[in-house]
Order: sequence, then C-alpha cells, then structure tokens
Amino acid sequence: MEIHRSKLMEFANRCLIAVGVPEQEASIISNSLVEADARGIHSHGLMRLPIYIQRMEKGLIRREAKMVVEQENRAAVVLDGNHSAGQVVATYAMNRAIAKAEEYGIGAVAVKNSNHFGVAAHYAMMASHKDMIGIVMSNTAPLMPPVGGAEKIIGNNPFAMAAPTDHKYPLVLDMALSQVAFGKILYAKSKGLSIPEGWGADKNGNGTTDPRAVLEGGFLLPLGGPKGFGLALMIEVVTAVLAGGAISKMIPSMYDLTQKQSISHLMVAIRIASFTEPDRFKQMASVLSSYVKEAKKASGIDEIYLPGEIELSLEEKRNESGIPISDNVIAELNRLAETLQVPILASNHS
Amino acid sequence: MEIHRSKLMEFANRCLIAVGVPEQEASIISNSLVEADARGIHSHGLMRLPIYIQRMEKGLIRREAKMVVEQENRAAVVLDGNHSAGQVVATYAMNRAIAKAEEYGIGAVAVKNSNHFGVAAHYAMMASHKDMIGIVMSNTAPLMPPVGGAEKIIGNNPFAMAAPTDHKYPLVLDMALSQVAFGKILYAKSKGLSIPEGWGADKNGNGTTDPRAVLEGGFLLPLGGPKGFGLALMIEVVTAVLAGGAISKMIPSMYDLTQKQSISHLMVAIRIASFTEPDRFKQMASVLSSYVKEAKKASGIDEIYLPGEIELSLEEKRNESGIPISDNVIAELNRLAETLQVPILASNHS
Repeated sequence: MEIHRSKLMEFANRCLIAVGVPEQEASIISNSLVEADARGIHSHGLMRLPIYIQRMEKGLIRREAKMVVEQENRAAVVLDGNHSAGQVVATYAMNRAIAKAEEYGIGAVAVKNSNHFGVAAHYAMMASHKDMIGIVMSNTAPLMPPVGGAEKIIGNNPFAMAAPTDHKYPLVLDMALSQVAFGKILYAKSKGLSIPEGWGADKNGNGTTDPRAVLEGGFLLPLGGPKGFGLALMIEVVTAVLAGGAISKMIPSMYDLTQKQSISHLMVAIRIASFTEPDRFKQMASVLSSYVKEAKKASGIDEIYLPGEIELSLEEKRNESGIPISDNVIAELNRLAETLQVPILASNHS
Repeated sequence: MEIHRSKLMEFANRCLIAVGVPEQEASIISNSLVEADARGIHSHGLMRLPIYIQRMEKGLIRREAKMVVEQENRAAVVLDGNHSAGQVVATYAMNRAIAKAEEYGIGAVAVKNSNHFGVAAHYAMMASHKDMIGIVMSNTAPLMPPVGGAEKIIGNNPFAMAAPTDHKYPLVLDMALSQVAFGKILYAKSKGLSIPEGWGADKNGNGTTDPRAVLEGGFLLPLGGPKGFGLALMIEVVTAVLAGGAISKMIPSMYDLTQKQSISHLMVAIRIASFTEPDRFKQMASVLSSYVKEAKKASGIDEIYLPGEIELSLEEKRNESGIPISDNVIAELNRLAETLQVPILASNHS
C-alpha cells in the first residue's frame, strides 16, 4: 500500500525514540530509510528498521551517537564512529569533509567503527547540494569471493558520487560492487522471486537463480569479474585500512546478533570553486547530461536515463502520491511496533 | 621476438628525440610504452609509438612540453597541459598531487588539454611508492553509448588506484570502464582475432565478435551496463568538467590526424601518514592481500591473483628475459625508424 512520506517518518521516528535514540538522530536514520523507499531502493528502506533496532537493543549499535575525531591533519580526518548508528556517523563525517573542502579545496574523512549507513548517494548529495563533488565509499561484511575463489573475502562495497548540474537533478551514481546489491537478494527472497543468472553463486561457488541459495552460505558475484573485484578490494583499502578499522573476514554479518560490525567509510568532498567557476561547471555538466539524454537511441528504447535520474524523479512523484510499502514489510513493521508498544504503521490490506 | 627492455627504451628514445622531443621527456614517454609491454599490456605499448609521433609531426601533440598551472588553491590545482605529451603532463600532475598531499594530507590536480597518457597505473604507483594512495582518472574520446543508446557519448575512461603493502608488490587496480579496453580491440584486429561477446557492438548497436565492426563505426560496451556507464560519466565530470576541458563529443579520436585531442585527467594523492601509521597500513593491506591469496578456491583454480600482481610479476620476469614484441609491431616500428632515418629496432624473424 502507499503511505505518505510524513507518516512513514513519524512511524520510524517513534520506533527509534522508543528504544532511546535522541530525536535528532532518529530523524537522520528515519530519513535515510524513508528516502530509500521513496527512491525505489526498497532494499535499503524501512525493511531495515527492525534489524537496526534489534542491534540497538543488543547493544551492538549505540543508541546515542558518540563519535571521536582520532586524527586531524589539515584536510585529512580520521573519525572513530564508536559503533554509533551508521547514518549519524556518515552525516557527521560528510559534514566534516565538506568543511575541510571549504578550507583546502578537497577534504577526506576516513571513518572506522561505524555501521550500515543506508544509501550512500545521500551523503554524496550533501556535497553536491553545496556546489561540491561528493564521493562516498564503504566496506561491508564480506559477501563476495575473489575471482577464482569460493570463500567470502570482500564486501559488495558501495561507491557513490554526486555532482551538481543546472538541470533539474544532480548527477548521482550509487553502486554496489557486486553485480547487484545484497539487499536485492534479500528483497527477491522476501517476495519469493528468483534472481537472474550472474547475480550470485551457491556455497560451492556454482551460479544459482535461487536467492535462498545465495543467502544460505553462498556468494554475491563481483561486477564484471576482476574489475568489480579489484575496485571492491581497493575500497576496502581506502576505507578500513586507511581508517585503521576492521577488514574483510573480521566483520560479522549485520544479521549476526552477537557481534558489533565495525564498518569503515571514506567521505571525500571536492570544492568546485577551488578549481573552476561553479556556474561554468554546472553548465558543462548539463551539456554532458544533454549529450546523454539526446543520444541516438537503440531500437525499442524511448528514453535514456542519467545516473540518479530514475531514483530522484521517483522520489519527487512519491513525495506527492505516497510511498509503496509491501505487505510483508508493513506486517514486520507492525510486529516491531507491537514489541515496542508504539502505534502500528497501518492496518494491512486497508 | 623477445627484446631486452633497455634496447626497446633506446629505440623509442631515439625515435622521439629524432622528432624533437627533449631527452628527459622522451625517456618518460618511452618508459610508459616499454613498461606497458613488459607488464603484458601490449595495447598501450610500443604499438602506440607511431601514432604518437605522427601526431607530433602534425603539431597535434607538442614535442616540447609546456604546462601552465592555471589555478592553485591550497590542495587543489588546475593544470593546463597545453597539448603536451600525455605522459609528461601526467607525471608532472601526479608529482604536484603528491606534493600537495605531503602538505595537506590529500591533494588533487585536475588537468585539461592533455593527451593519451598510456597506462594509468604508472601514475597511481608514483604515489604508492611514496607511502600514499594514488588515484588516477582520465577521459578519452567517446567510445561507448549510454545504456540504451546507439551513439558514442562517453569514453572507456580509465580508473587506476594503487596502495603500498609490505608484500612484494603494491595493490594496483587499473581498469577501463568498457567491458574491455579499446586497445584490446585494436590488438585483436592487429592479430586477426575475433573478440568475445559483450566486448562491443556494431554501428547499429548490435553485439559483434568482429573487432573491425567495433572499430568501423561501432561501440565498446560499458562494464556491466549502467554501473560501468555511470562511473565513466562521473569520471568525465571529475576530470573534464572539473578542469574546464573538452567533454564527450568535443574530443576527436587519437587516429584523427586533423585535430588536437584535449584529454583531461584527475590525479589524487592521499598521504597515509596523515591518517594512520604507514607501517600499520602496509601490514593491514598485506593481511587483506593474504586473505585473498589464501581464500578457498573454486574447483580447477590453482592460484588467486591480487590487482596488479599478474602485470608486476610479468614485468619482473621480462626485465630479465626480454619483452615479447609481435612481428606486426616490429615491422611498424621499423617502418617508423626508416621514415625518421634512425636505426631500426630489429630484423624480423631473426
């Protein structure tokens, strides 16, 4: 059913506040989840709220954030997230990167001991809204084998980048370095769907179309083989190794309720005005966008989309019309509300 | 036949010096080409020397480099390459980025009006040799359609990243954002080989296994579809748009002998010591590398390779044994030598 954004925000906020998250932090986390659903990235939407709250209740995610700047050397910052909520840590870190870029032209904040931060694009867009280029990387629990391997060694480490234009939307790339995101496997499983070939392998390293086989000891496969594996590995280096955080097999799954996760990020902001006139930059970014939109089309294609365009236009529409949330997810959220003794989100099938 | 590295260097140097390239700059260009052949990246090896020299003779690449720093704001630099040789410009730019990172913890040099710079990994490794993480991006002439398009809009823009370890080799990723590099299509054509499906499409956007169909009005295809296209587009933004250089369709092919190319790059150096102890970084990068090397293997796999490992171990071996250069390329280089009235490289079939 479709539910208005403000109603979803209120619901997520009251669940988070019920377990002791301060109001302002709750709002950052809720916005990340609801924004994901609004943009059609349901794998990072409210379906994640129950696991976040379970982890908070187990003391694996800090309810009240407590970040510490561990190192600060001009444009370089290392932030210890101290197991605070990923969204709160990442928001703080990107704001620091933006402040550093304001001063030095470019700023980088390496973060350790953080958690799942939702959709990476959100933080990249914090920079693009300030006439900067934002770059966001994170490691995750290991989900993929190296090329030729049959053991989880590297996460499907997300990479996001956003840049302003003078068109309607900024250019916003957000990709996980598996052929698809882990959440899409979870989502397919939650819907009882099979997955296309090339998305994942079973526990013996054989390709499979059954999302359960991937989730039960199997593997996500890297984007395009060695290139996707290589980029994921370098992201592990520039996040976890640079921040002095946990790497690869040291990181347990988000669904392991016995251990803290210790996720690492890197936030980079590049101040456009330190290189060129922001107006000229945005104008040329828009010319480039027009080349893409107006390119000769392959047969059967009506429109070509820019990175981020589908998600941002969907969000705009859904901010008016309401955001579709699946019956499964509503049922889970209602169960969560009952446990927390707060009002449920919505009656199903209403 | 296999030819010793020093003999290849001497040959390339004398050709470049014969057309008026200063000795030190010739040596930078020659090293880029010979190093590529040594690492098995023949598509960026000496087979490129004739086109570089043709472009110099036509005045499309400056024989003597003349770079100008156009902007300098703390850690941010914009460099106008003034149509100098790509290798010379890129070397200068990465050295500036390294100097900026030395001072600010991170440095970024955006470059416009440059040329084809050879193998991107070379510049990333300049940083890793100094206990920094090096990141190199470049645009190229448009070679790929957007997803759903049938017109060349975006280059197979290379992305390289290198980081030091305390193992034998640094970690070195170098990838073009097409499923394969343009040079591999050229190389297949030069060898009379067909190409695998998924590498390219013909002029109507239909997939093909004929490298000539790709070269004659056809297209390279992006790595994994929208992700590879999106990353290539964002690289265009962070190189050409940020540097104020030429974008997309404004850039002619390297093989168009009537126009300058105006390629843009971005060089980023991240000083590890500004974030963490370099020794600890290298130790953890090596632990990560060991996880990869020692991962459980899929059936039929004897060894798993790290990014850059195959290339760097090949180079080491070939520095001793000599570097194999194909008869076709030797013949072309000999023709070049005759035109330039310098001694030929080698008698064929000797």
